[in-house]
Amino acid sequence: MSVRTKVLSVENMNPHIKKMEYAVRGPIVIRAGEIEAELQKGEKKPFPDVIRANIGDCHATGQQPLTFIRQVSAICAYPELLKDPNFPRDAKERARRILDGCGGHSIGSYSDSSGVKVIREDTAKYITDRDGHPSNWEDIFLSTGASDGIKTIMKLLMTGETGKGRAGVMIPIPQYPLYTATIAEYNAHPIGYFLNEDRNWALDVSELKRALEEAKPHCRPKAIVIINPGNPTGQVLTKENIEAVIKFAKEENLFLMADEVYQHNIYAQGSKFYSFKKVLTEMGSKYNDLELASFMSTSKGYMGECGFRGGYCEVINLDPDVKAMLLKSISAKLCSSIAGQAVMDVVVNPPKQGEPSYDLFEKEKWMVLGQLAEKAKMVTETFNTIEGISCNEVQGAMYAFPQIKLPKKLLEAAKAKGQSPDAFYCFNLLEETGICVVPGSGFGQVEGTYHFRTTILPPVQKLGEMLARFRDFHLQFMEKYQ
Amino acid sequence: MSVRTKVLSVENMNPHIKKMEYAVRGPIVIRAGEIEAELQKGEKKPFPDVIRANIGDCHATGQQPLTFIRQVSAICAYPELLKDPNFPRDAKERARRILDGCGGHSIGSYSDSSGVKVIREDTAKYITDRDGHPSNWEDIFLSTGASDGIKTIMKLLMTGETGKGRAGVMIPIPQYPLYTATIAEYNAHPIGYFLNEDRNWALDVSELKRALEEAKPHCRPKAIVIINPGNPTGQVLTKENIEAVIKFAKEENLFLMADEVYQHNIYAQGSKFYSFKKVLTEMGSKYNDLELASFMSTSKGYMGECGFRGGYCEVINLDPDVKAMLLKSISAKLCSSIAGQAVMDVVVNPPKQGEPSYDLFEKEKWMVLGQLAEKAKMVTETFNTIEGISCNEVQGAMYAFPQIKLPKKLLEAAKAKGQSPDAFYCFNLLEETGICVVPGSGFGQVEGTYHFRTTILPPVQKLGEMLARFRDFHLQFMEKYQ
Repeated sequence: MSVRTKVLSVENMNPHIKKMEYAVRGPIVIRAGEIEAELQKGEKKPFPDVIRANIGDCHATGQQPLTFIRQVSAICAYPELLKDPNFPRDAKERARRILDGCGGHSIGSYSDSSGVKVIREDTAKYITDRDGHPSNWEDIFLSTGASDGIKTIMKLLMTGETGKGRAGVMIPIPQYPLYTATIAEYNAHPIGYFLNEDRNWALDVSELKRALEEAKPHCRPKAIVIINPGNPTGQVLTKENIEAVIKFAKEENLFLMADEVYQHNIYAQGSKFYSFKKVLTEMGSKYNDLELASFMSTSKGYMGECGFRGGYCEVINLDPDVKAMLLKSISAKLCSSIAGQAVMDVVVNPPKQGEPSYDLFEKEKWMVLGQLAEKAKMVTETFNTIEGISCNEVQGAMYAFPQIKLPKKLLEAAKAKGQSPDAFYCFNLLEETGICVVPGSGFGQVEGTYHFRTTILPPVQKLGEMLARFRDFHLQFMEKYQ
Repeated sequence: MSVRTKVLSVENMNPHIKKMEYAVRGPIVIRAGEIEAELQKGEKKPFPDVIRANIGDCHATGQQPLTFIRQVSAICAYPELLKDPNFPRDAKERARRILDGCGGHSIGSYSDSSGVKVIREDTAKYITDRDGHPSNWEDIFLSTGASDGIKTIMKLLMTGETGKGRAGVMIPIPQYPLYTATIAEYNAHPIGYFLNEDRNWALDVSELKRALEEAKPHCRPKAIVIINPGNPTGQVLTKENIEAVIKFAKEENLFLMADEVYQHNIYAQGSKFYSFKKVLTEMGSKYNDLELASFMSTSKGYMGECGFRGGYCEVINLDPDVKAMLLKSISAKLCSSIAGQAVMDVVVNPPKQGEPSYDLFEKEKWMVLGQLAEKAKMVTETFNTIEGISCNEVQGAMYAFPQIKLPKKLLEAAKAKGQSPDAFYCFNLLEETGICVVPGSGFGQVEGTYHFRTTILPPVQKLGEMLARFRDFHLQFMEKYQ
């Protein structure tokens, strides 16, 4: 018998999966893992450790979980703790309420595919209080992180056609790679609109129009994605900017997808978070019937509970028949993790003034957010003092996306190595300093400009050390290629 | 301005989502929920409560979680409990080991997309011990329940083409609706092969051949799905039957997808679980290089931890480049819930003899499995005493799939109502008894035969009551249409 060929080969596998890329977990991160292993084996390096600034993974970088979130989690997992006098009354009440919402009072039961009803209700109340406008719990579904909600909505928007019949989805450039990965996986057409780096990464409507008009012959434009606060760009949109986007979406008949997972992460003086739902509602009857999905996660904010994979999506103004299809489409996944749903519940229903855990919760929350604000400032300021690097103000979220001016000789050296210049820069940075950041090309950037994304997550002292290592590297590296 | 039309309508939405169906959460389950609400409002019904026998949701039907699983979960969520003398030493050790495998020692961190390394290692050890053949931890990825793993593998197999170029996937009929739902979503071609009801739902190779030959002009056959123990059919495949399937897969160059989530659920005397991996390995060099993915879940077995959404997939003999693509494809999901991964860890690394929790764990485990065995027998025997119902032995898993002989007048009445006869039967059963089971048409059945799927999960006494209500209904209903 001849040598058996594999059923599945790179040649015959799903071509859309082959095309997708996910930079924040890409080759540079794989190399960072190898270097860590080399350090562990005792290999000598010009640095003591790898600093992972490639992914918004708060606890991995040393942030402590909030006590109350974890107390509620633990009680939900092991209800015997309801009898434990060391657990505060309000944590027990929250846990009991969640358990009462679960089949058989167990978080080991499936929930409805859209989530546990009381948690959906708490989420609606949170949104109502946040925006000052009513939210309906039946418009909420709980998701496995925000990513799962985003993929669910995007899946509905697909046309099932190829070529010019494909759905077009407008996404910012730079963008969070989930969007290009999902668009590639679903064989949709990405319509990239450039954020304006000169105006602190604002959205220019003229650029939205340019991008859309250029794409119209190639696809059927269906939706616009807005990430606010921005990832990887860290900007916070003004209310006026949001209004302009909503007007544009209405004119062009686009479904609004608002990635608002960083809604708690606002640092800059004068910046404020406005949800798309709030702005759209306040724009009155001409706009308040637009179809909008807003995404939220337990992974970011002050909680940073990435591993729990909690999230929600609020979707408004959907055609009722489409909504039924949406619910059907998530039913085959059964439900998102109830442990994750429970964490989401604490986020939307935190301890209230007068409850025993209120003070500690507020203290822990504001300590995290205060440090993030400090680090946002520190990163922006430091990068702007390094020659050849310019960095917009990190107004919110957890990232900076500085621009680096690269000398011609460096561009040639990168080309000779078959790497994009920013990847060349970042790989060298990693090898020489242990700092792992993600090349701008993974997020998209104006041609001929070069960036990288760094998180602002390492603890203050570590971040200072990282920035110092960075500066030294940058200056030497630039000198080398001058 | 004219009335705004929705961006997203049933007419222009994703046609593949429109087509998909998921019977175990379908219209009959929605109606069951409405009836529960009506009962709560005080509406009079000829029954006191709804008995949900539609879904394998163990805890919702009264099964208690295993103490040790939940102790480890609680400690992982709230590591302060490491200091609590009420928690046993081995639970603390397990939790500490998992936490040490997490970034920042927190289950709030992301893991690698394929899961926490120590949990993958424990899983490999479990498989090695189970089969007596080595398993490599790098062949394991942890998934959000088994469903997520199944969808991940199926996605890789897609061709990206339409019409005759579509991937064909062989699935049993009757099948678990995840498969048809996923095949519809991915626009693949389902190749249904009938299980042999007369031989206790065995797989006949002649039927596999028939199904495949008929499908070949319509698609590119890529994979065969086997569910063992069977869902919804409850059979346990013999080693010989598995060997025959493996030979067939080799001859036809098919990727093997073994849904083995019920591997702990074996009840019938003489039945034994053989994993596809074990059988394939023992068939020697002619067969042991076949590509195989095996799926496992925390949701079933004796643990029934559905809400934690834990699972694993072991995939062997993959082309290394395809494996890299597989890892890339899951990276955009970041990772499965670490709380779910932790539960998976306990399942693959339970307390050992001599450890403090061993006795309690074994006692709780075997109590659940013993009761399931008793209920499997009770369900089979009772249905077979009801005239017009015949039921194969429930050898394993958690379901029975009895056949009902329906009189001609009933078929006409169903037709007049626009319902399939089995749906008509099940809806009437629900309205008159409160028992919620799923019509056979949701799983597939030989034309002209009618079935329903019921779980065997309600507690013994409740199950007895359910079967009594069922018998009364059936006899009256048959009389009505005789």
